Amino acid sequence: MHHIRDDDLAAMDARYRNMMINSLSGFKSANLIGTSNANGEFNLAIFSSVVHLGSSPALVGFITRPNSVSRHTLENIRLTGHFTINQVSEDFWQAAHQTSARYSAEQCEFEQTGLTPQIIDGITAPFVQESRLKYALTLEQIIPIDINNTLMIIGRISHILCDEQAIKNDGYIDIQCLDTVMVSGLDSYHTGSRLSRLSYAKPNMALRKLSLDGQPETNLT
Amino acid sequence: MHHIRDDDLAAMDARYRNMMINSLSGFKSANLIGTSNANGEFNLAIFSSVVHLGSSPALVGFITRPNSVSRHTLENIRLTGHFTINQVSEDFWQAAHQTSARYSAEQCEFEQTGLTPQIIDGITAPFVQESRLKYALTLEQIIPIDINNTLMIIGRISHILCDEQAIKNDGYIDIQCLDTVMVSGLDSYHTGSRLSRLSYAKPNMALRKLSLDGQPETNLT
Repeated sequence: MHHIRDDDLAAMDARYRNMMINSLSGFKSANLIGTSNANGEFNLAIFSSVVHLGSSPALVGFITRPNSVSRHTLENIRLTGHFTINQVSEDFWQAAHQTSARYSAEQCEFEQTGLTPQIIDGITAPFVQESRLKYALTLEQIIPIDINNTLMIIGRISHILCDEQAIKNDGYIDIQCLDTVMVSGLDSYHTGSRLSRLSYAKPNMALRKLSLDGQPETNLT
Repeated sequence: MHHIRDDDLAAMDARYRNMMINSLSGFKSANLIGTSNANGEFNLAIFSSVVHLGSSPALVGFITRPNSVSRHTLENIRLTGHFTINQVSEDFWQAAHQTSARYSAEQCEFEQTGLTPQIIDGITAPFVQESRLKYALTLEQIIPIDINNTLMIIGRISHILCDEQAIKNDGYIDIQCLDTVMVSGLDSYHTGSRLSRLSYAKPNMALRKLSLDGQPETNLT
């Protein structure tokens, strides 16, 4: 096993270190965040830091920097209090990656990448039409992470749009059948291949494989 | 598309809602967090909320609840200031899931699940021997997320252990070749299948596929 110590990290080329450290957290979700400014102009940016916070209330967070390439996302959320999160699927993963280019405020990422904005129910933040699982959020809180000048943006889910076929009997959404992609490092994209669903773990009780609908299938061998 | 509104969410059965909301953030990393108490007794618990925060300094965070089944992880980190994060791979994904059972403080998850503790360089928090990419962290900050009584635990990376073959020329770690697994929802495990690495996106510049070492290969068609 290769052993890297904090002295080695400090001495690393900054780009090499950035690539390596970004690989450590494991596979990361790939999501497009849609916002609108005061003039109704749309912004779209890819994020790999969306994280589940809780189900009741339904809260999701993501990490950003105040002055990053995605600063328009943050500005628009502060201004309007609304955003959408759209899972990236295999149909448009390259266009999703292209949203990370440093476009000017006047350049709309939808137009530049060929993705299609979608508006429903008077929500001013745009969804991505091509996304097969997406939701609208209302800003709840922005938490500063002072240690490295990042922010955690927390939203409450108000609307969910999902391909009907992916919703299973117990509420599980089969995001693999939606061809949802994920990221590793900064720039590697992957699809998922299911091992299995597993039963709720209890002490001294053998795990069982579950069907996609959450029904016990077989004992593990 | 199935459309779920916040009224529908409020009216849902709590377990159904929990399963559904946990599916929304996309594929999630699967990591085992190792800690030690004051008596040197080890704890191990699986988390799907590990998130990259920054590379310089190298910071990683995760979300937990004060009174959850993983409360021993939090207690030990508060007490000792140290923890390890170990990527879960296909060799031991079922044992990793089993660590989520509600064991008593006296029951060691390593013994109960058959995983092997590994100690290096006098770091008191145990690694998982079976893990092929793992790192030790020093507690930097615990940020309360008051809105739903969760916490974000932030650690600074001090040691990284990684299979040599997975580290590429530009610092990217090929976690797919390590058979690293991911989670969707609460209980579905998946391996990754690479689409490609992509070049850094710039306005008005075509994306290129990159080799595993980060070298330009072909223009996208």
